[in-house]
Amino acid sequence: MPASAPNSQQEIRRRNLSRVLHTVAERAPVSRAGIAARVGLTRAAVSTLVDELLRGGLLTELGPGRTGGVGRPGHALDVGARGPCGIGADVGVDRLVVVALDLRGRVRARAEAEGDHRDSDPDEVLARLAALVEETAAGAAGHGLAPAGLAVAVPGLVGRDSTRVVRTPNLGWPATDLRPRLPRSLPLTVDNEANFGALAELWHGGTEAPADFVHVSARIGIGGAVVLGGELLRGARGFAGELGHVPVVPEGRPCGCGGRGCLEQYAGEEALLGAAGLPAGHASPRSRTAVLAERAAQGDAAALRALRDAGRALGVALAGTVNLLDPEAVVLGGELAGLGRFLLPALTGELASRQAAPAPVPRLLTSAVGTDGPVLGAARSVVRAVLDDPMAHAPARA
Amino acid sequence: MPASAPNSQQEIRRRNLSRVLHTVAERAPVSRAGIAARVGLTRAAVSTLVDELLRGGLLTELGPGRTGGVGRPGHALDVGARGPCGIGADVGVDRLVVVALDLRGRVRARAEAEGDHRDSDPDEVLARLAALVEETAAGAAGHGLAPAGLAVAVPGLVGRDSTRVVRTPNLGWPATDLRPRLPRSLPLTVDNEANFGALAELWHGGTEAPADFVHVSARIGIGGAVVLGGELLRGARGFAGELGHVPVVPEGRPCGCGGRGCLEQYAGEEALLGAAGLPAGHASPRSRTAVLAERAAQGDAAALRALRDAGRALGVALAGTVNLLDPEAVVLGGELAGLGRFLLPALTGELASRQAAPAPVPRLLTSAVGTDGPVLGAARSVVRAVLDDPMAHAPARA
Repeated sequence: MPASAPNSQQEIRRRNLSRVLHTVAERAPVSRAGIAARVGLTRAAVSTLVDELLRGGLLTELGPGRTGGVGRPGHALDVGARGPCGIGADVGVDRLVVVALDLRGRVRARAEAEGDHRDSDPDEVLARLAALVEETAAGAAGHGLAPAGLAVAVPGLVGRDSTRVVRTPNLGWPATDLRPRLPRSLPLTVDNEANFGALAELWHGGTEAPADFVHVSARIGIGGAVVLGGELLRGARGFAGELGHVPVVPEGRPCGCGGRGCLEQYAGEEALLGAAGLPAGHASPRSRTAVLAERAAQGDAAALRALRDAGRALGVALAGTVNLLDPEAVVLGGELAGLGRFLLPALTGELASRQAAPAPVPRLLTSAVGTDGPVLGAARSVVRAVLDDPMAHAPARA
Repeated sequence: MPASAPNSQQEIRRRNLSRVLHTVAERAPVSRAGIAARVGLTRAAVSTLVDELLRGGLLTELGPGRTGGVGRPGHALDVGARGPCGIGADVGVDRLVVVALDLRGRVRARAEAEGDHRDSDPDEVLARLAALVEETAAGAAGHGLAPAGLAVAVPGLVGRDSTRVVRTPNLGWPATDLRPRLPRSLPLTVDNEANFGALAELWHGGTEAPADFVHVSARIGIGGAVVLGGELLRGARGFAGELGHVPVVPEGRPCGCGGRGCLEQYAGEEALLGAAGLPAGHASPRSRTAVLAERAAQGDAAALRALRDAGRALGVALAGTVNLLDPEAVVLGGELAGLGRFLLPALTGELASRQAAPAPVPRLLTSAVGTDGPVLGAARSVVRAVLDDPMAHAPARA
């Protein structure tokens, strides 16, 4: 065998520990027998693995008889009450949010601050973010949770496997490395907000989630992400998914990216509010969108026209995307999800009339996660790293 | 371990046989020691594997001392002179081509027929194709080669893992299953011509080929294919890569797909010839393109304008594609490759000015394979299936 062959004993053990911990995270409280049935290992093998996870502080044991079912009552296993947690952070254009998620995916601590981050100083914004991270970590510690890492969602382009934001059109930052500006004790990952939003959809949906989908979300800009075979498409440099910069009118409005006629200029929040005759102002995006939805619901012609035109622009960009990628579904997230009923008629019309392939058109879904998608996806990425390799993150090494 | 665990002994042997055969196919003539050094196995292990491949009729042994290098002269191993071959076929809009490729990738037999297949009868065209396949297989048999399978490239959409063409805008066929219409003795695969063209680029390039690229080629229509991580993107239904139907002018010219303003209507052959004031006629695509290139080279204003406008339309569609996928490279194939110098200035201008990501723009390459890409990619897909699992295709079972 070549020298590069993996140490399979160790690899198999690592994978089995992961499968046991994933199972408890999904189904707790659950007995050893329940785990064994689920993962296809013997009860004895599961007991050995569970013992290792218990010694590592990754699982806890509840009293007897808590699992129901037939046979001798087992001591049910639980996860997440104590042990590792994931910290997720979201640098929005007008707010910062930080959450701590336990291994069962429950939010156990949260800190949030409004702010106007357009054309802001990255040092100042990241100092405030660092304080919110410390506050959230302290809150988590109060519940007996130890942060295993920090993942930050940013509205910009992040180099592949890097903590450096290279372009943030809506924040106006120069290229900025987040690593030296955030708590050094925490392993750090940084990614585009739309990527974390798409991962939140993927991980939330369970077995019903499509494995191939295009995720499109709007806050100030239009974010996009592509998931293929259950994996996020990152691109050669880490910059894939920039749906907001797909041209929809070749010689159209100039865009901050340097191009012309980008989708963002027709379906982004500023374009939408401008077309509807509403001020962009400094209200939170949720309230701005709520005002627009309200006007549309009252039959305001300008609001309805703005939403119909945005739906058409989305339909044109998504038609090209669908013809190129043939995904199972398109998922609308962010503020778009809340405007769905006004956008969808024009959007689906364009999409259906521009299909190179025979019917059916891919499923069009609205987000199952909501506007917290990016911050939840970020925190969840840390939690999944723990579930995928438990002993590397064990608070108490056995 | 769960019951689904693979039989790893057998799997490892299969993989090692494949690695040995791939190595000989790439480097023949080569000695056992040369193979051992290449694949990282012992000389003894390689000898056992080589013996099995020799017994199976997949390798042949040359006389001693033919490999050069230091040490005791070994008996060099060769592949491809006899044994399995792959048959590839290409159903073009105005010609049929069939080739037989040996395991070293050399064309050993070829048959070709001109024809006008627009709005044709699939039974008639496929009967002629079947005759060319029989002719090519007979030619290969004359060299001692046994066809291991047939792969057919078609200018249309083919369902995933299916031999059924579901939409062929330029042939005008109804949905047609190719299986009952082609020689039954040969295992059959069918795929879109642009997919096989992209695979030909990928497999041709060796180590210098990009692993992530978008392939765009033109014959009558505009074909596209997406390769990510060295794998062809097929899409949920098998219909990915329809770059020709990315909208470039939202309310533009009607397209055969039912949409409007598709790239094909601005950069496809008919659009190009029409804009240049040339008749579409029934000359071969190569001669039509040659006439256009000649006129442009002579400074003909209409030809130059037509090519510039087509380059712009390609640039707009590819800009959206690049922003979405962030590929390493864009490869121009088919007839586009020959028109590159007239298309590229406008194309690269659009691409560079519409980048969401910081520079550099992905590399823009012209095809290394040429207009035979689809038929070569098809034949090569059969050859690779043999190299990937040799004993399943051994002419003489050991």
